[in-house]
Amino acid sequence: MGESERVRMGMRRIKLTLAYDGTRFSGWQLQKNDRTVQAVIEAAIEKIHGHAVSVTGAGRTDAGVHATGQVAHFDTDNDAIPDVKFTDAINGNLPHDVRILDSVSVESDFHARFQALSRTYHYYFDTCFPGMPHMRFYSWQLKRPLDVNRLNDFARCVTGAHDFTSFASALDPTPSKEKTVTCSCFYESRGLVVYEICGKSFLWKMVRNIVGTIIGCVGSGRTAEDFIKIMEAIDRRAAGPCAPARGLFLERVEYGKPQ
Amino acid sequence: MGESERVRMGMRRIKLTLAYDGTRFSGWQLQKNDRTVQAVIEAAIEKIHGHAVSVTGAGRTDAGVHATGQVAHFDTDNDAIPDVKFTDAINGNLPHDVRILDSVSVESDFHARFQALSRTYHYYFDTCFPGMPHMRFYSWQLKRPLDVNRLNDFARCVTGAHDFTSFASALDPTPSKEKTVTCSCFYESRGLVVYEICGKSFLWKMVRNIVGTIIGCVGSGRTAEDFIKIMEAIDRRAAGPCAPARGLFLERVEYGKPQ
Repeated sequence: MGESERVRMGMRRIKLTLAYDGTRFSGWQLQKNDRTVQAVIEAAIEKIHGHAVSVTGAGRTDAGVHATGQVAHFDTDNDAIPDVKFTDAINGNLPHDVRILDSVSVESDFHARFQALSRTYHYYFDTCFPGMPHMRFYSWQLKRPLDVNRLNDFARCVTGAHDFTSFASALDPTPSKEKTVTCSCFYESRGLVVYEICGKSFLWKMVRNIVGTIIGCVGSGRTAEDFIKIMEAIDRRAAGPCAPARGLFLERVEYGKPQ
Repeated sequence: MGESERVRMGMRRIKLTLAYDGTRFSGWQLQKNDRTVQAVIEAAIEKIHGHAVSVTGAGRTDAGVHATGQVAHFDTDNDAIPDVKFTDAINGNLPHDVRILDSVSVESDFHARFQALSRTYHYYFDTCFPGMPHMRFYSWQLKRPLDVNRLNDFARCVTGAHDFTSFASALDPTPSKEKTVTCSCFYESRGLVVYEICGKSFLWKMVRNIVGTIIGCVGSGRTAEDFIKIMEAIDRRAAGPCAPARGLFLERVEYGKPQ
C-alpha cells in the first residue's frame, strides 16, 4: 500500500514495546506448527481487527529466549482505538506469558527491525549451585562461582568492530559477519552474574556463542589472548558451545528519535 | 529415641539448606491430598533410606510462597552417605522446583524451627505495569510506581517489639501476638522494589498482611500515623488485605553458632 492510499484509508502505524517469558515459545518468528510470540500477538491483533494483521519485530529471538523490551510494529485501519489503548486491547487477548508494555503511533516509515540503532541483551548466570529453582528457566545455572573481573578480561575483547564469523551460527545467511559491539561487560546484581552486550545488530546465535565460549575459556584456564585467537580464526569450529537460551533476555531496542 | 540410643544406632542429625519455587506447592507443611515441599523432600529421603524419615522445617511457608534459604533437619541411620553428599543424593530424587543447597551434620539437639535466631523474608514488587511476564509468579505486579521513601515511612513503624494482632491471621492460634522485628525496609533492586523484614519469628500471614496494609495505605493516601493506629488497634479488621503469596521469599534463617 502506498503512502497516499494509507493516509486515505486512515491507517496508523503502531509501535509496541513488549515483554515475554520465552520458556514455552518456539521463539519470536512465525512457524507453521509451533507456538511463537509473533503468532500469539498477530492472533490477538486479528481478534481486535476482524482480519489478519502482520507484525514485525525488532529482534527474532530464538526458542526459550526472553524479552523485557522487544519492539514491534503493525499497521491498523481501526479508527476507534486510541494509540495508547492498543496496550490494553491487545493484552486482553494475549496469554499471560506475553505482555504489551506500551503502544504509540509512529511515522508510517518507522520500521522496528531496520531502524533500530541499538539492541541490548542481558545474559543471567545463577552460580548458587545447584541453582535457585525460581531461576531455573531464566538463567544458566553453573556449578562454579564466576570471577567477574576475570570474565571482563574476555568481555573487553568483544567490544568494537570485528568479524564475528567464529560466533555466528553456521546457518546464518548474512554475507558480512562484521558487527560492532558498543558495550560488553559482566557485573553482579542481586546474587546473579549478568553479561550485558549492546550493538546495532547481532548475527544469529552470536550472543549465546560468545557467552558459551567465554564460560568455556574460563573453565579450561584459557586467557583473553586465546579468546582473541578464537575470534580471529573466523571459524565457528574454533569457538565454544552455544550457551543455553534460557539465560538470555532482549532487554531493550533503541531508535534515533522519539517515535 | 534417647541420646544414648541414637549414638548406639549411629544416628546423625542433618541440617539442610534448601530453595524452592513455591508456585506449584500447597506450601511447606504436609497435607493429606496436596503437593507440599515437606512431602516431596520426605519422599526423596525415604527413597534413599528405604523407610519413612520425618523432616522439620524452620518456616512453614504458605501455598505459593518461595524460599531461597529455608532450613530443615532430619535424623538419618544411613552410615554410607557422608554429610555433604546428602545434597546430591536428595537432589537426585527431587523435582526441579526444589533444590537442596547444602547439607551438614549438626548436634543431635539442633532444631531447625525452635533454635532459629533470625528469619529474613523478601517481598518483591514489579511496578512495570502490566508487569514482566517472567516475574508473574515471583512478584506482586502493581499498576502504579512505588515511592520507596514514602514506603519506608510505613516500614519504619514495624521495627521493634509490638503486638502484631492486627497483622496476624484470624486463625493464628499463638496466644501471645508480640513479636520483635529487627529490620523492616524497602529498597530498589534491578528494576524491582524489595521489602526486607527480619525477626526471630513471625505470626501466620504476618509479613503478607503488613505488606498488603502498607500498599493499601500508600494507595489511599493514608499516613504513617494512620498505620500506627491500625497496628495499635490490635484488631485484624483494622488492617488491609493480605498481599499475594507469589511475591514472598523466605530468604534465610540464621542460628547462633555454626551448626
